[in-house]
Amino acid sequence: MIGVGVIGCGYWGPNHVRNLSANPSSRVLYACDLSEERLAHVGRLYPATRPVRDYQEVLRDPAVDAVVVATPVSTHARIALDAFRAGKHVLVEKPMTASVEDALRLIEAADRAGKILMVGHTFLYASAVRMIQRTIAGGVLGRIHYVSMQRLNLGLFQTDYNVVWDLAPHDVSILLYLLPARPVAVSVHGRANVHPGVEDVAMMTLRFDDGMIAFLHFSWLDPKKVRQAIFVGDKKMLVYDDIRDTEKVDIYDKGVSAPKHYDTYAEFKFSYRYGEKVTPYIEEVEPLKFESAHFLECIQTGKKPLTDGANGLEVIRVLEASHRSIKNGGGFEKIG
Amino acid sequence: MIGVGVIGCGYWGPNHVRNLSANPSSRVLYACDLSEERLAHVGRLYPATRPVRDYQEVLRDPAVDAVVVATPVSTHARIALDAFRAGKHVLVEKPMTASVEDALRLIEAADRAGKILMVGHTFLYASAVRMIQRTIAGGVLGRIHYVSMQRLNLGLFQTDYNVVWDLAPHDVSILLYLLPARPVAVSVHGRANVHPGVEDVAMMTLRFDDGMIAFLHFSWLDPKKVRQAIFVGDKKMLVYDDIRDTEKVDIYDKGVSAPKHYDTYAEFKFSYRYGEKVTPYIEEVEPLKFESAHFLECIQTGKKPLTDGANGLEVIRVLEASHRSIKNGGGFEKIG
Amino acid sequence: MIGVGVIGCGYWGPNHVRNLSANPSSRVLYACDLSEERLAHVGRLYPATRPVRDYQEVLRDPAVDAVVVATPVSTHARIALDAFRAGKHVLVEKPMTASVEDALRLIEAADRAGKILMVGHTFLYASAVRMIQRTIAGGVLGRIHYVSMQRLNLGLFQTDYNVVWDLAPHDVSILLYLLPARPVAVSVHGRANVHPGVEDVAMMTLRFDDGMIAFLHFSWLDPKKVRQAIFVGDKKMLVYDDIRDTEKVDIYDKGVSAPKHYDTYAEFKFSYRYGEKVTPYIEEVEPLKFESAHFLECIQTGKKPLTDGANGLEVIRVLEASHRSIKNGGGFEKIG
Amino acid sequence: MIGVGVIGCGYWGPNHVRNLSANPSSRVLYACDLSEERLAHVGRLYPATRPVRDYQEVLRDPAVDAVVVATPVSTHARIALDAFRAGKHVLVEKPMTASVEDALRLIEAADRAGKILMVGHTFLYASAVRMIQRTIAGGVLGRIHYVSMQRLNLGLFQTDYNVVWDLAPHDVSILLYLLPARPVAVSVHGRANVHPGVEDVAMMTLRFDDGMIAFLHFSWLDPKKVRQAIFVGDKKMLVYDDIRDTEKVDIYDKGVSAPKHYDTYAEFKFSYRYGEKVTPYIEEVEPLKFESAHFLECIQTGKKPLTDGANGLEVIRVLEASHRSIKNGGGFEKIG
Repeated sequence: MIGVGVIGCGYWGPNHVRNLSANPSSRVLYACDLSEERLAHVGRLYPATRPVRDYQEVLRDPAVDAVVVATPVSTHARIALDAFRAGKHVLVEKPMTASVEDALRLIEAADRAGKILMVGHTFLYASAVRMIQRTIAGGVLGRIHYVSMQRLNLGLFQTDYNVVWDLAPHDVSILLYLLPARPVAVSVHGRANVHPGVEDVAMMTLRFDDGMIAFLHFSWLDPKKVRQAIFVGDKKMLVYDDIRDTEKVDIYDKGVSAPKHYDTYAEFKFSYRYGEKVTPYIEEVEPLKFESAHFLECIQTGKKPLTDGANGLEVIRVLEASHRSIKNGGGFEKIG
Repeated sequence: MIGVGVIGCGYWGPNHVRNLSANPSSRVLYACDLSEERLAHVGRLYPATRPVRDYQEVLRDPAVDAVVVATPVSTHARIALDAFRAGKHVLVEKPMTASVEDALRLIEAADRAGKILMVGHTFLYASAVRMIQRTIAGGVLGRIHYVSMQRLNLGLFQTDYNVVWDLAPHDVSILLYLLPARPVAVSVHGRANVHPGVEDVAMMTLRFDDGMIAFLHFSWLDPKKVRQAIFVGDKKMLVYDDIRDTEKVDIYDKGVSAPKHYDTYAEFKFSYRYGEKVTPYIEEVEPLKFESAHFLECIQTGKKPLTDGANGLEVIRVLEASHRSIKNGGGFEKIG
Repeated sequence: MIGVGVIGCGYWGPNHVRNLSANPSSRVLYACDLSEERLAHVGRLYPATRPVRDYQEVLRDPAVDAVVVATPVSTHARIALDAFRAGKHVLVEKPMTASVEDALRLIEAADRAGKILMVGHTFLYASAVRMIQRTIAGGVLGRIHYVSMQRLNLGLFQTDYNVVWDLAPHDVSILLYLLPARPVAVSVHGRANVHPGVEDVAMMTLRFDDGMIAFLHFSWLDPKKVRQAIFVGDKKMLVYDDIRDTEKVDIYDKGVSAPKHYDTYAEFKFSYRYGEKVTPYIEEVEPLKFESAHFLECIQTGKKPLTDGANGLEVIRVLEASHRSIKNGGGFEKIG
Repeated sequence: MIGVGVIGCGYWGPNHVRNLSANPSSRVLYACDLSEERLAHVGRLYPATRPVRDYQEVLRDPAVDAVVVATPVSTHARIALDAFRAGKHVLVEKPMTASVEDALRLIEAADRAGKILMVGHTFLYASAVRMIQRTIAGGVLGRIHYVSMQRLNLGLFQTDYNVVWDLAPHDVSILLYLLPARPVAVSVHGRANVHPGVEDVAMMTLRFDDGMIAFLHFSWLDPKKVRQAIFVGDKKMLVYDDIRDTEKVDIYDKGVSAPKHYDTYAEFKFSYRYGEKVTPYIEEVEPLKFESAHFLECIQTGKKPLTDGANGLEVIRVLEASHRSIKNGGGFEKIG
């Protein structure tokens, strides 16, 4: 039985408490937050978990084997470093840190402590993403021509970081997981519409070492929520629509598309050809349930996490280069 | 009764023949094409129209008041200039010309001849686009934050021009029509996947004189056809989906989106708020029917066309600057 | 070259004129209607076709080999019988006649004259329906458990016949074409909401000789148009959505659906299982184009039409029995 | 603080445990089930709840104020009667009982004991259903012409009762809640495809005392899940699609639908008119959370539950009459 403390019980932390409580391999010994109101709420739902305000109290308890860090990004590095020093395994929320420098320090600290460092790139534990990974790796789509991703919604406006830092960790981590190629340069065009200096809409272009290109669109301004990724290969095209409850993935055959002559408006409307579409069955499971189980398994077996520190670092490298690109007016910046 | 000759009966020309034949104000005297097979086909459907191979024959007939030029882009300027010299009104397909220089020559020639020069930006005659124009002009959306457009399909591959020259005329002409601001700079990231040197996928970013930003995504590689534009304002958001037969336009209220705490995965899924959505009724009419009628009306009344030479020129300016941007690696290029 | 006269140029007749004009095997010699305004309209669009008010004038012309009867249902029998007497082939619109008795007389008259009698069950010439026919005949769905069809829209209100006579001919003809079993009894529950005595909404239940059951829902009252048919077999399920421009047919695998335990609302939402879905590519062609070509081919070759008199009669038998069922309060009535 | 025991922890009971545990007004003292495995599972998730096998043990504890009965239908009456005798309030799952006779006995027992009897018609606590109730009651739809409901999925096959007993309680309870009229007769056509004698697909027709008609379609055989209800009024039409995560309700204006003449296939496709569609914003909350809170509130205040015994009885009356109708071949049976 692994003893766990969850540090940060605001927006996302309670989901860690719930999943780790339900897992028979772990017990959530502590829930930690600066807000008394949040602590009271979590305490009522999980009577076996002890609510505390000071995370040092969690780290001091030898019954705690591992901590989850679900606090604001700016505090990730400090808390995680303290945790490694106290000899705990750490699952840190995304983005791993606020800088490449901090990310490198975390990786080093985990190494030195001989403890697990895992990053909460939850989407990599989603059934649909894993199915897409197998599809691409199996060559079903052929050579990937380009990728287009959209993550648009009415945002949780932040003033300390922009829409890229908020939303890109999801899609960049998915992209790096799904594609064998590595990103070499990034260009970001954005605009701050609501809070001066804080971009709330952005278009990121990533260039990869094999020449592939990816477009990633982020927005905090869209009342209609969109979570979509399309992968266009030379054989097939895959569309991943994460808004849907089921049927999240469609795979399209390429049709023939010879220019045709036609004589009516209706024929014109039908003049583009499509191939067959297949919508595979995917069993839905809460991704965090898999993520929690994976974290516990890595602790028990010493296995390297799928979303380890190196993986978290690669995402931070893209974010830092993106930030430079926005500031330089959208020119390409090298990654790495 | 206005006598018309349609020059070019390949992909799109027959639709002009059909609409101008059905309009009681015009008669299609000539259908002109280099292909005997196309001429035979059009001749059978429209027995009252004379099929000819040489467009000069059309221009020589004094019964011909106006011509439609629906030939490959590279020939637009030459044929249209000949037509003005012969004293004909001209409706030229989009894009108007292959260069800004040619566009200026056409405008000047029309002026000198005192004839109508109209460009076939058909979408500006679509009921949905006109309804969106009234909606934006009426302030319903508030200040526009940004626009995102997508025109994706399995393409009619060209080797003489790229996906931007093929598809951007549609969306750029719509955008310039709908927005009061003028574009000042353009950046295009693209990639040639199939034919070396011919981009088949591209992302265009347009910056406007009021600071607004627009993203336009074009592709010839997508088996799933997409024709979508979203306009995000500070009051409402409008989504225009041109693939649908009806219900092409949705208008979304902005909902409140305060960060919430939640305890279950289901609550998490519902944690983004939406406002009411309204889908106005739009009566569908074939856009080219309106366009044909507008061309005839301008000839009869001397009225300036909605899609006149200046309008066609502005689109060409964006296309030329886009071309420079692609060639310089995606940096912004000034327009105009 | 087959000479044709189209009798009735109101709602649907002009589509016959257009398709038969475009077909190289036929010439439309006459367009006949009682309305001068309709005749003027058709005459302008088809200058080679002669507009006349009296259908006897059409029947007298020996250059006329065949007629299309697209007049109100109550006149079908009289006009078609006159046409057979005049030695013409006849394509009569659906429903073929207003009674079984008239249907039998038409079949007999066609036999006696040795001419083609074809019924305009247009849907049987639609690409999607033909693809579904091949799918079912090929055993892909397995044994059909049941069928459910919906044809709902804001109706073209009639006062001389009800929603069943208006809409059921489409779906009943499709059903009889697609299934090997024959209908033996019908029950119809309906209600007259707008015009007393004229049902504008109805639910038809058909029982077949193999025990299969089909539910057909018709309405003139629905602002949201629906055209859907589902075929549930013991292997797979097929959904045909005729509203869509493309992707009209989806084929679903049966998933496993063991009752599961679950602990959260989200798991509950995901607890029903689905199998893979396949959406075959279907090339869209205007069904009437195929129907016209088939009529001409049958005239030229003597081939029996797919939608011959016997087929039209079977539909009328279902309609008559349906009428009796509505009048008797919804009890089952024998067909045949 | 209200002490609660949840009897039955199979399919649905754990959701009661979760919601009543999270509600600050109640404590779940007992979770009761015959299966040791279910008890172990619930015990781990809710350490403060005592797992027991015998429901009499729950009833004997004076700290228990109320019980939830989430056992198989055939046992509802016996357990609930025992609970009333022991002086407990009772929330019994749907359908309330297996017969009208049992339902009457439960109502009488609750009256005699002076305790709350509430039925778990959960949908009446769904935000969307409550919003529809206000819409209809407010006259927005005008006079209701007819209602059509569909509840189709791959079923949890039962052999002790058919698809009507399984699925109709949901839709019938919704219908009775939403409409002021009362059902007077019911006809059900069904078929047993998989297990002889157990109908797995059925079409129910309900006639109401104001002449209104409703069609309810149930199936255990459909791989594509459908949960839809449409309400067609003389002013507007409302469509409720419970499959969607958001935008569950659309309200359609009636458009004009004069028959039109048209000359092309495309115009034909557009010839039906639609009015504007409005999709109201509805905040999603887990319905059972509201239901739990309502049960506790009724206990505390003595308020009559929205879904009280009389309400549960009315549903059972429809189910019993439906059963008679299926057995008599689909003829109408009186309700009540």
